[in-house]
Amino acid sequence: MKKIKVGVAGYGTIGQRLADGVALQEDMELVGIADLAPTLSIQALRERDMVGAGGVKYDLYLVDGADPLAFAKKDIPVAGSFEDLCKKVDIMLDSAPGGVGAKNKENYYEKYGVKAVFQGGEQNSVADVFFHGYANYEKGVGADYLKLTSCNTTGLIRTVDCLDREIGIEKVAITIIRRVADPGDYHRGLTNALQMDKAPTHQAVDLMTIMPHVDATGILVHTPVTHGHIITVLATAKDGRKITKEEALEAFRKHPRIRVVSLEEGFKGNASFFKYARDLGNRRGDMYEIGLWEDSIVESGNDIMYAINIPQESVTIPETMDAIRAATKMQMTREEGTAATNQYLGIGKFKDLK
Amino acid sequence: MKKIKVGVAGYGTIGQRLADGVALQEDMELVGIADLAPTLSIQALRERDMVGAGGVKYDLYLVDGADPLAFAKKDIPVAGSFEDLCKKVDIMLDSAPGGVGAKNKENYYEKYGVKAVFQGGEQNSVADVFFHGYANYEKGVGADYLKLTSCNTTGLIRTVDCLDREIGIEKVAITIIRRVADPGDYHRGLTNALQMDKAPTHQAVDLMTIMPHVDATGILVHTPVTHGHIITVLATAKDGRKITKEEALEAFRKHPRIRVVSLEEGFKGNASFFKYARDLGNRRGDMYEIGLWEDSIVESGNDIMYAINIPQESVTIPETMDAIRAATKMQMTREEGTAATNQYLGIGKFKDLK
Amino acid sequence: MKKIKVGVAGYGTIGQRLADGVALQEDMELVGIADLAPTLSIQALRERDMVGAGGVKYDLYLVDGADPLAFAKKDIPVAGSFEDLCKKVDIMLDSAPGGVGAKNKENYYEKYGVKAVFQGGEQNSVADVFFHGYANYEKGVGADYLKLTSCNTTGLIRTVDCLDREIGIEKVAITIIRRVADPGDYHRGLTNALQMDKAPTHQAVDLMTIMPHVDATGILVHTPVTHGHIITVLATAKDGRKITKEEALEAFRKHPRIRVVSLEEGFKGNASFFKYARDLGNRRGDMYEIGLWEDSIVESGNDIMYAINIPQESVTIPETMDAIRAATKMQMTREEGTAATNQYLGIGKFKDLK
Amino acid sequence: MKKIKVGVAGYGTIGQRLADGVALQEDMELVGIADLAPTLSIQALRERDMVGAGGVKYDLYLVDGADPLAFAKKDIPVAGSFEDLCKKVDIMLDSAPGGVGAKNKENYYEKYGVKAVFQGGEQNSVADVFFHGYANYEKGVGADYLKLTSCNTTGLIRTVDCLDREIGIEKVAITIIRRVADPGDYHRGLTNALQMDKAPTHQAVDLMTIMPHVDATGILVHTPVTHGHIITVLATAKDGRKITKEEALEAFRKHPRIRVVSLEEGFKGNASFFKYARDLGNRRGDMYEIGLWEDSIVESGNDIMYAINIPQESVTIPETMDAIRAATKMQMTREEGTAATNQYLGIGKFKDLK
Repeated sequence: MKKIKVGVAGYGTIGQRLADGVALQEDMELVGIADLAPTLSIQALRERDMVGAGGVKYDLYLVDGADPLAFAKKDIPVAGSFEDLCKKVDIMLDSAPGGVGAKNKENYYEKYGVKAVFQGGEQNSVADVFFHGYANYEKGVGADYLKLTSCNTTGLIRTVDCLDREIGIEKVAITIIRRVADPGDYHRGLTNALQMDKAPTHQAVDLMTIMPHVDATGILVHTPVTHGHIITVLATAKDGRKITKEEALEAFRKHPRIRVVSLEEGFKGNASFFKYARDLGNRRGDMYEIGLWEDSIVESGNDIMYAINIPQESVTIPETMDAIRAATKMQMTREEGTAATNQYLGIGKFKDLK
Repeated sequence: MKKIKVGVAGYGTIGQRLADGVALQEDMELVGIADLAPTLSIQALRERDMVGAGGVKYDLYLVDGADPLAFAKKDIPVAGSFEDLCKKVDIMLDSAPGGVGAKNKENYYEKYGVKAVFQGGEQNSVADVFFHGYANYEKGVGADYLKLTSCNTTGLIRTVDCLDREIGIEKVAITIIRRVADPGDYHRGLTNALQMDKAPTHQAVDLMTIMPHVDATGILVHTPVTHGHIITVLATAKDGRKITKEEALEAFRKHPRIRVVSLEEGFKGNASFFKYARDLGNRRGDMYEIGLWEDSIVESGNDIMYAINIPQESVTIPETMDAIRAATKMQMTREEGTAATNQYLGIGKFKDLK
Repeated sequence: MKKIKVGVAGYGTIGQRLADGVALQEDMELVGIADLAPTLSIQALRERDMVGAGGVKYDLYLVDGADPLAFAKKDIPVAGSFEDLCKKVDIMLDSAPGGVGAKNKENYYEKYGVKAVFQGGEQNSVADVFFHGYANYEKGVGADYLKLTSCNTTGLIRTVDCLDREIGIEKVAITIIRRVADPGDYHRGLTNALQMDKAPTHQAVDLMTIMPHVDATGILVHTPVTHGHIITVLATAKDGRKITKEEALEAFRKHPRIRVVSLEEGFKGNASFFKYARDLGNRRGDMYEIGLWEDSIVESGNDIMYAINIPQESVTIPETMDAIRAATKMQMTREEGTAATNQYLGIGKFKDLK
Repeated sequence: MKKIKVGVAGYGTIGQRLADGVALQEDMELVGIADLAPTLSIQALRERDMVGAGGVKYDLYLVDGADPLAFAKKDIPVAGSFEDLCKKVDIMLDSAPGGVGAKNKENYYEKYGVKAVFQGGEQNSVADVFFHGYANYEKGVGADYLKLTSCNTTGLIRTVDCLDREIGIEKVAITIIRRVADPGDYHRGLTNALQMDKAPTHQAVDLMTIMPHVDATGILVHTPVTHGHIITVLATAKDGRKITKEEALEAFRKHPRIRVVSLEEGFKGNASFFKYARDLGNRRGDMYEIGLWEDSIVESGNDIMYAINIPQESVTIPETMDAIRAATKMQMTREEGTAATNQYLGIGKFKDLK
């Protein structure tokens, strides 16, 4: 089988994990990664002889403006320019800083006929399709430019789409309790303060773009923590139908990318998921599934309310793999596309345990 | 006019502020405060020659089990025993640790015919009435034992009662983003973690006790900050009526104990309220009003969603003053009772500014 | 007696407290404050009818670039321009953002013969004297332009100067455990991280400028808290002399601006001081004294090691009042100058309690 | 070669990492781990079919008081009782909660002739030797019961022993800026506060036990972070000899368990090390080396001052492996013992990169 050739532009928090994700897909080939400076993450790669997930070699290409000497001084091997990388790949995962992706498209992707999947920082207009692996896979099939939903929206939609397919959803109201920085971030932070955003929060608006038949709104509050967002969701079914706790729980339990957990088991909050992922031995302490607390589910009249945990660094990786599959027509349906991603990332195996 | 004689049992975070609140009520007399040990708060009082808010002297009584020598060593003057204090007052504000209030009632209040207002830590059964100054003032009129709602519930009910009287509310779903400790707390804390509570959260249950015609539920998440809880509220009107942002805003603006603020003015989060109260020169940096962000209000179908800020250390003080007024029949109606409290605490004057 | 006329440029965290400090000095007149925008702090002043500490009216002047309409919209009364203020004062306390003070000097202070005291953000070159009320008061006498030491340096020097005068100090090595933001700050922050600065830290260098006979160095680490820096100091006496815990303690106990406290009393950390200041009823919960833990003092060979607490928002206020006294020759000696400041700010009264 | 048989009592934060460490030593056999309850960490092991580091199977034994049903309910396989485990091993790594180790020794280790290495939580009296792989390896050779230094002391001694062997050290004064909880901890925490400990801190006292010719003292301050302690050290050479920055740096650079890093490279604080370890793909995001900032090293008269980073969860693992080697006489000298540990844990390879 011919493997799809994939590049990753930007080796930051998301880019590293995209590269790892691709390295684990046995039907894809990670051609290389591209970045601007010898960051700590690249120095770490160098310390491991440029070998990443699954024992795969990560060849490094330099984007425009990079100083080759800075890399040479640290003995970091370079495989070529970003343009060189573009010539070799079928599709680029663009996790460059916001705005750079649009320029990359103009300068390189269009020129070399490279498809691209952009991350949440780009404008929606950069892409033909605003994509989510479970909610609108088919829209992405064969598309040239896809933009992925952001971390919160990706996790949120998993649950709303899940309920929608089982029950039919017409309205959601969300409260996002957002982690303000990632572990190791020194360029942003918040100290002993909660911070309000102007409502409605963009994640609700984005959900409506992906699922236009659902009315969504919500409020976002930033909190001074690093290990995972928590979102509370109030979902209203179509046609005045009541949603019971039992049927919601049953639906969530079947979804491969949702881990239903409980306080009793020891999942006390967002930090428990991070600890659990480290204890699992997961690379970087990452988790691809979102968490959903069984003991958070409550009925509010006919509506259902629940709380989920979003591992912000890694949650979008599976849906980005889905996006590659859709764009390159590796699989034509959501069932096949997501199943292939799940298999290679080891998602959903925990379901058999319980 | 004969002043109502008031005592305060427990000079902790709440007790100090209750004493301050009573000291400012010109129609009440603070007979004394009672505590067990020469805490930092009592040492601070000593440093100020036992003079508190409004230049009022705070006489100190010792509760059972206190060691008089510990006070003598620090040169802290003592006025008598808790029983002595009970003999002198008409009503006691009991802010002792949870469970102690019930014993105080059994041992002293019933014996000496002292009315009492208990704080949130006591069981509901200790009191005849579970009380909120705005929502059910009349139920407290003439009652002997009242229990006040906790800080979150007190602030939450201000807004739900406000909408209910204007529009009619039948259902609310809340998300409480709880501050986990007060400034200066070393006996509890949370570090880089959000923590889930089992749902539904007790504040929703308490709201239903006070406002039995409203269906309420919700989820609570603890966050590692000290300056104020934030609650998001989704409120549904009776009979399928739509609530518009404009009418909700208009109702909130009229309430003396709700400050409607905006991000544009500079109220970026819970810490802004604390800073503002300090800048106002408020004693202890306290604020009696809750905050409500104008830019958080959004419509969700027919429902309305909004976010409020709860200054946890001081928010229950006005409603406790209301409770004294109701229990001792100083004022017979909510309008008169709350108006008197507001006048002496300087609440609502800011309304004239805008 | 003719009162010295004082203005305050910049009504931020430090400027507000400088204005309060001047308002409490009975031999000074606060002519006015100046700022650029209707910040929350100015809105708070407006809510109090522009009345600040000690019941003093704070007239507001607008600095160059301010938009009078922005103030008018919020009904904030304006008394004139910054130039108007400069014409009326003998001395300006300049707490404008870093760099602005130098321009103010060039544009206004020199033109109108206004003396000035700059805060830590300005370059040393802006001033004739780098000043500390206890360590080099006499150098400031009659000077036109003084720059005050920063908050950490101010508190640190109190203790080193104190030991130096009693015992003679030749070397100090410090570790600054720095609070990274003030309560209410949203423009800077750190989340779940300690951050290193390049050594040696500037506070050690500044100490050597003020006390040239002492060799100083040190390391600074930022921590994600808001209530006070903690500094550990290792001090070496001249000529190989041993410093005992007892003599160090005795020296510290005599200093009016050092509070010797203990863990046993309840001062468990930096947050305890903030709580204590609030409990004292101090305006804004401020404290002018630094804390020094008795139970932190240990002997290291001949050297002495101890830990102090720096209330960063308010610690420089007394030394700035000293600077006014020196510059305007109100008092000619450190003993007289600092005594007058201490009297009006109520500093040192707690000493009599113990 | 016959492999040394090792057990691990207590599968908590340290116990998990001890098991991983043993699993990686090719000349040791991990016979099993023991614990009391099906914690999240054990549930994670179960999800991975009980396979841990290096693909090694971790057999689980139950300590006295464990409820087998609780494990059965979660389908967690159990290999036997703690006594069964004791019968099979040559040496036990005891990382049970403080005090339990002493009982294990009395009840099982003495009975079955099992040697043991206790972690920092036990009393010193439980062991024959208080051990550090680099500072006193030879003392541990052939000993039956060893106690390991705690995380801070372990890392601190690496640097002091390193300087001592090169230069000769007679005195150190330390400031420990302690992380207050581990990632995922919900049973302890601190929120927006620094907390002082009574001085001198026990790590200085412990250092003197291991290195009796050095005088040590210090102060410890707790900070609300989770990723690594930072310690500043002021070291004084013997006989009035001056220590230069250059010679200190050279000594540190040669030590396999010390990573000399710089702010310029991107190591901005404790969280950078955690991020780097995750980026390296290290299991659990752990690091065995301590960090030492080149740009923190400053001369203070004849003394040298520097700052180190202690990855608290994993730093004691290598020295514990050393302890096994010493106790069981696998290697008779520190050079051979530490070299074997370093080889199997991959420590020191980064030294060749620079």
